Amino acid sequence: MAAAKLTGVLAPVVTPFDRDLSVDHGRLVSHCRWLLSQECGLALLGTNSEANSLSLEERISLLDAVVEAGLPPARMMPGTGCCSLPETVALTRHAIELGCAGVLMLPPFYYKKVSDDGLFGYFSEVIQRVGDSRLRIYLYHIPPVAQVPLSLPLLERLLSKHPRSVVGMKDSGGDWSYTQSVLNNLPNFGVFVGSEQFLLAGMRNGGIGCVSATVNVNPKAIHDLYVNWRAQDADDKQAALSATRAVIQSFSMIPALKAIIAHHVGDPDWVTVRPPLVALSAEQRHRLAEALDDRGFGMPGVNGSE
Amino acid sequence: MAAAKLTGVLAPVVTPFDRDLSVDHGRLVSHCRWLLSQECGLALLGTNSEANSLSLEERISLLDAVVEAGLPPARMMPGTGCCSLPETVALTRHAIELGCAGVLMLPPFYYKKVSDDGLFGYFSEVIQRVGDSRLRIYLYHIPPVAQVPLSLPLLERLLSKHPRSVVGMKDSGGDWSYTQSVLNNLPNFGVFVGSEQFLLAGMRNGGIGCVSATVNVNPKAIHDLYVNWRAQDADDKQAALSATRAVIQSFSMIPALKAIIAHHVGDPDWVTVRPPLVALSAEQRHRLAEALDDRGFGMPGVNGSE
Repeated sequence: MAAAKLTGVLAPVVTPFDRDLSVDHGRLVSHCRWLLSQECGLALLGTNSEANSLSLEERISLLDAVVEAGLPPARMMPGTGCCSLPETVALTRHAIELGCAGVLMLPPFYYKKVSDDGLFGYFSEVIQRVGDSRLRIYLYHIPPVAQVPLSLPLLERLLSKHPRSVVGMKDSGGDWSYTQSVLNNLPNFGVFVGSEQFLLAGMRNGGIGCVSATVNVNPKAIHDLYVNWRAQDADDKQAALSATRAVIQSFSMIPALKAIIAHHVGDPDWVTVRPPLVALSAEQRHRLAEALDDRGFGMPGVNGSE
Repeated sequence: MAAAKLTGVLAPVVTPFDRDLSVDHGRLVSHCRWLLSQECGLALLGTNSEANSLSLEERISLLDAVVEAGLPPARMMPGTGCCSLPETVALTRHAIELGCAGVLMLPPFYYKKVSDDGLFGYFSEVIQRVGDSRLRIYLYHIPPVAQVPLSLPLLERLLSKHPRSVVGMKDSGGDWSYTQSVLNNLPNFGVFVGSEQFLLAGMRNGGIGCVSATVNVNPKAIHDLYVNWRAQDADDKQAALSATRAVIQSFSMIPALKAIIAHHVGDPDWVTVRPPLVALSAEQRHRLAEALDDRGFGMPGVNGSE
């Protein structure tokens, strides 16, 4: 099996929009630069990026923009899984051509209760059509949203058939028993936990890091636990991370992340989301900011000052 | 409120593929012609059409092909709802420009548990951006697949705000109490039931017809009940339709429809589906054909001979 090239802490980078809902590349690049300065990689075009609310064309332009801005594709794992085979193939090829270290691939998520045979056929067809030895796929298991889980037998089958292309996964299932079964049964498979609340448990059981929503706003502390998970105070650090996450998660996650960035960058337009999501109300933003202030939360350097 | 222009029985037209999985326009046009000859309309690009397994470009080409072949857009209600606002707008505009009588619009279906405010914002933004007085939207309620239901309060709000654009719905929820609540509360709203098993109940309660998977193979009998729902033998006809549907539905629906067409047209390539769907096995196709033969099922005229 090919080794996972990417490890550590990655942000599923939120996508800033102008007031007319178009993608704002300038603010996106600034946010990415800050995340990189905090030692975090870039999982662009993920769930928290509202990727499925962007057209294929917009997704391609977004990747072009961050690479043209000089950001390192070796730190990027963009989401490329669409419902349709041709679009998944096109976006994956584009990511590879730009030099991205890996791609995060959702299963096709319109049909539900599809068979493992069907999902195996889909991923195999994508790999064959992409036809590039540089392809490194991280499978994206997120049943609470996609509603199409990736079973352990399916993972085993894909790894066995495509050992050079299928190198890891992001597990956003929220079910530690599933995560543990993957870690136990597939020892050389690169498993990112999908929330920092499982980061310490993941590292202690052979995980390779995390790709989590809140990395967008709390990267340094999450990266610190990733680096120092063997230290004596690791459990305390985990508890603090989980407590901060709980505050944010008590609001709708994506609007909350954008509200936090808007507040700390000092740019109110950052709150904009595309429908069907809805931005937090002023009252919600105020409560969120207060709750985080109470925890001494900050985003040092995010507004370019500091 | 604008009246629904479309009524009656429509097929969510299955999409034939070549062996390389590309869309076969020729076979599609033939199938559409046969459906029209059976008095049925064309709900192209629906769930049973594997529309979400096609790229946006393929969907646009498919619509162009059927219209260029001379089929009447006045009998068409293509699916145009994508996860992303710009793609939904682009496909809807294209359908209107081709003269399609209406469009069937899924809600954005990636995010789950989205608010009514978010869905209202989405559909309103689509309507505003399309900006065409010819727009006639049939909302597509299909929670078993999309996992994003359309609540009665949401329907009421959309009808109240956009009375000329939002004219009806396809209800594929499979829950008659929901259907009845819509029929009772929104008397001038055009409700297509999403399965012929509810056709008689729908017509008796003010419905306008049905858009059902099995119309692809059993159009004449379904249309007959639609026309003669007030006749004395309507309950018997309903029972016969439901029994035929039950046979087909005991297999995976889309592969089963394609297997039935392949069998009756005499073209084995018709069985091809795109992953994540899987074609029926030879053994399954044999059992399905036998079970339908036992019911005296046929598709008269489908292979051009009769």
